Amino acid sequence: MNVRTDLAVELVSSKQNKNDGHDGYTCEIRETDAYKTTVITVDNETGEKAIGKPKGQYITVEMAPFGVDGEFTDGRVEAVEKELLKLIPKEGPILVVGLGNRDITADALGPLAVSKILATRHLKSEKGLLKNLREVAGIIPGVLGQTGIEVSDILKGIVEMIKPSAIITIDALAARDLDRLGCTIQITDTGVSPGSGIGNRRKTINKETMGVPVISIGVPTVIAMANITDDEKYSNLIVTPKDIDLLIERAARFISLAINKSLFRTLSTDDIIGLCG
Amino acid sequence: MNVRTDLAVELVSSKQNKNDGHDGYTCEIRETDAYKTTVITVDNETGEKAIGKPKGQYITVEMAPFGVDGEFTDGRVEAVEKELLKLIPKEGPILVVGLGNRDITADALGPLAVSKILATRHLKSEKGLLKNLREVAGIIPGVLGQTGIEVSDILKGIVEMIKPSAIITIDALAARDLDRLGCTIQITDTGVSPGSGIGNRRKTINKETMGVPVISIGVPTVIAMANITDDEKYSNLIVTPKDIDLLIERAARFISLAINKSLFRTLSTDDIIGLCG
Amino acid sequence: MNVRTDLAVELVSSKQNKNDGHDGYTCEIRETDAYKTTVITVDNETGEKAIGKPKGQYITVEMAPFGVDGEFTDGRVEAVEKELLKLIPKEGPILVVGLGNRDITADALGPLAVSKILATRHLKSEKGLLKNLREVAGIIPGVLGQTGIEVSDILKGIVEMIKPSAIITIDALAARDLDRLGCTIQITDTGVSPGSGIGNRRKTINKETMGVPVISIGVPTVIAMANITDDEKYSNLIVTPKDIDLLIERAARFISLAINKSLFRTLSTDDIIGLCG
Amino acid sequence: MNVRTDLAVELVSSKQNKNDGHDGYTCEIRETDAYKTTVITVDNETGEKAIGKPKGQYITVEMAPFGVDGEFTDGRVEAVEKELLKLIPKEGPILVVGLGNRDITADALGPLAVSKILATRHLKSEKGLLKNLREVAGIIPGVLGQTGIEVSDILKGIVEMIKPSAIITIDALAARDLDRLGCTIQITDTGVSPGSGIGNRRKTINKETMGVPVISIGVPTVIAMANITDDEKYSNLIVTPKDIDLLIERAARFISLAINKSLFRTLSTDDIIGLCG
Repeated sequence: MNVRTDLAVELVSSKQNKNDGHDGYTCEIRETDAYKTTVITVDNETGEKAIGKPKGQYITVEMAPFGVDGEFTDGRVEAVEKELLKLIPKEGPILVVGLGNRDITADALGPLAVSKILATRHLKSEKGLLKNLREVAGIIPGVLGQTGIEVSDILKGIVEMIKPSAIITIDALAARDLDRLGCTIQITDTGVSPGSGIGNRRKTINKETMGVPVISIGVPTVIAMANITDDEKYSNLIVTPKDIDLLIERAARFISLAINKSLFRTLSTDDIIGLCG
Repeated sequence: MNVRTDLAVELVSSKQNKNDGHDGYTCEIRETDAYKTTVITVDNETGEKAIGKPKGQYITVEMAPFGVDGEFTDGRVEAVEKELLKLIPKEGPILVVGLGNRDITADALGPLAVSKILATRHLKSEKGLLKNLREVAGIIPGVLGQTGIEVSDILKGIVEMIKPSAIITIDALAARDLDRLGCTIQITDTGVSPGSGIGNRRKTINKETMGVPVISIGVPTVIAMANITDDEKYSNLIVTPKDIDLLIERAARFISLAINKSLFRTLSTDDIIGLCG
Repeated sequence: MNVRTDLAVELVSSKQNKNDGHDGYTCEIRETDAYKTTVITVDNETGEKAIGKPKGQYITVEMAPFGVDGEFTDGRVEAVEKELLKLIPKEGPILVVGLGNRDITADALGPLAVSKILATRHLKSEKGLLKNLREVAGIIPGVLGQTGIEVSDILKGIVEMIKPSAIITIDALAARDLDRLGCTIQITDTGVSPGSGIGNRRKTINKETMGVPVISIGVPTVIAMANITDDEKYSNLIVTPKDIDLLIERAARFISLAINKSLFRTLSTDDIIGLCG
Repeated sequence: MNVRTDLAVELVSSKQNKNDGHDGYTCEIRETDAYKTTVITVDNETGEKAIGKPKGQYITVEMAPFGVDGEFTDGRVEAVEKELLKLIPKEGPILVVGLGNRDITADALGPLAVSKILATRHLKSEKGLLKNLREVAGIIPGVLGQTGIEVSDILKGIVEMIKPSAIITIDALAARDLDRLGCTIQITDTGVSPGSGIGNRRKTINKETMGVPVISIGVPTVIAMANITDDEKYSNLIVTPKDIDLLIERAARFISLAINKSLFRTLSTDDIIGLCG
């Protein structure tokens, strides 16, 4: 059966987690009480074939389900923040992109998370406290079926104009393993591949197509029925938690908090919560 | 594997559709181009054991998916209306109850449908056109986990006060067959059984507990993962269509239209759409 | 001009704040850096005529606008909690009621706030941590126009069943003074009077009609146009802040936090935020 | 008092509706039973000064309130469609832009209406029925405060890419006259001026800045308090109908229906409702 997943970690584990770089990729695991971080590095074409994902880094942070603890005070936000800091350029404007369809619950993660990002780009010419903040812009481009325009085309126009030093995308992902829904975050510098998530996006958003580094953050919110039955006629069915509405809201809050903390190092967490909710 | 479904039609078909009344139930099928109506009548305890559902009628109308045609003009609304007219008392106030949790997409069918029912009970003492309309009240009681009160307890208080000649409940159902999501309606006079839908409701709402006839309308919106895997730890996962948000909205519109038409026979469909949206 | 307001403090101030009890009411003011508390006590019929509100206590807490500080850490939640503790019975189940129409932004305060109350009544028979929590039930009864049933009638049935030691109602209020929108809370033990808020509720919910103490919490979210123009034809217009959507969400969070803190004294604020969001 | 309105018709009527072209503008009125159309043409700089709006056409259609009739069957949709047909180029791709903030009720008209536009641009290369449809793209760019990017800048990038023959914008407007809320539509070929609506947009979207004709459709949903009191501190207050939520939904449906009808002349109204809801 042709298993569909957006998580590199699921492709590695299905290959018994070889870690010696022999197959063109390496896999490193770090664990604390609160979370487990797996860094998969695909080094070359051999690795691309072995894993089935493009060259680059895939960092997975696994933690307690988003729905359990209200304030994420066990260090997991900081764990994600730390990984982001390694990938996000130290300087220059950042464009944060919420991928997916805001009107479909399981696909609304990106739009919802971006609505909680502190957009500051328009404030740079103003006086006062905020002028020292990093220049950040956010955009919710919608999906092809709604707009009639490829998301990558919309982004290219915006990138040319605001010339960010990097793009951060946020998206709902499809996983293969039922245990990963709602307790996993994947960060990658390889961009967003076609056909990801529950939609059917087509053109890749990555460094090659955008001209600047693309850091993609995703949370698995659904499992494609294709992973459970290979009957074509069920391709429009998905598996989700009963409390998917709550999961999406909490995951959006989590991701936006981690991004805001990594972009606005001079603000306290309380300041960020105050400004962004 | 212990298959979970709220649809009587799925329990019969799995028993090869015996139709002779020998097992304590009968099954009658009527088909047109646009829809297929199955009436299962459970006659006695033998039938209750065979089907696993209480004595009474289970009417299933199968049709084109709710998402396809905008205005339901192919006669299917009238097909459901016709079945409702057989069950709803000709006179007396009607209480329409939207079961389920408004804040969980797949469980919001009942609340959403009731919000489109034309409530008239408070208008009966007023002058003008509306005073000849049937007395109808609607209520969205919420779910036990949100309110801390059993839904049946909330309803009992309201029933005592407004003394309806019947209760109509609307609820999201769980099905077993992937093909039935979003294109099936079940109507029954047996009430709503505990544990139905995706929530975990516990006390039955039926003629015995309410003191008046209870007509229950439901649409399968999810399939319990228990029907696909019997691993206990996945009991909080469900299978839904990708476009569940649209499906719920359309099914709510469909059901409310059929109920409004059966309760307000002197109003035209256009009037009802004008008043209820 | 016949000024319409739900805030007792506005009726007193328009009478130049007489404080000697001579007119049948007294008015006491306490101020801190973060908020100002005004306690108006209407003692007798003379006071009722002077103020135009029934006998009892009206406590107003004025503070910084809800939209400004993210986490309400300046003591104002505790200020409201303190006032609630004086009015809420020490023991017995509590019924929290979210008045208003969930589908009208400016009237959704009550429903939204109740959705954040920790309902525990159904957990009392269960083992574990939660069994020592106070018995709390929540209900969102809807409005007359939607349900066809008077809210007070719905509540009476529920009160008979769960026999609370008190009812707490939450409702959006109409104010007269443009400065009070979004930065004022009124708490009263006199119940909710007919025609309050932006809806047109008719039957009073108070100790006389319910049989148990009724503590009503409200936040002014609108100003009736009748306070600005007395032209009848504009009676369906209201004045609100541009950011009314944010205001309602924040006020609901504030009120639910204050109620949860006053009802669950053994839980920390962090626990409550974790459980209720 | 400095009256603020987005409706040209209100500026003319306050100048006693001079109609002779002497002041640099003309005003033509057509009435039927169901609606009243006013066409104001500002001819030159004299007219610009007299009216306070840029040169071009301002067409106002006044009708019954959006909230009353369910299906808009009295010809008013066709009245708006007819005016649009005069302004929209016969050929070439069309970009429909939903201005305003989706998360603020009174400002959500544009985003909501665009979500009901039939986007076809991505279907042009596909086979079948839809390939003969006009090429239409839709976009909801968000507002400056959310995105950090000027809306006009976002649009410029998209315009360069899809090269539309015209842009249609949809936006919530501010009116001066309480009677115009929810029963008026303005169509203009002059673009959207800075500071319109309830937001604070700054850069004009018009033929000069975009390079293609811009047809702007708006519905007054609010009145600025500045029209009632000139106290600066109330500049963040607005007057709206109590049922603003319903009004916005209905107006969005109305506008999208009129636009879809004018862009897809080969589709029936029923087809459009079926495809767009």
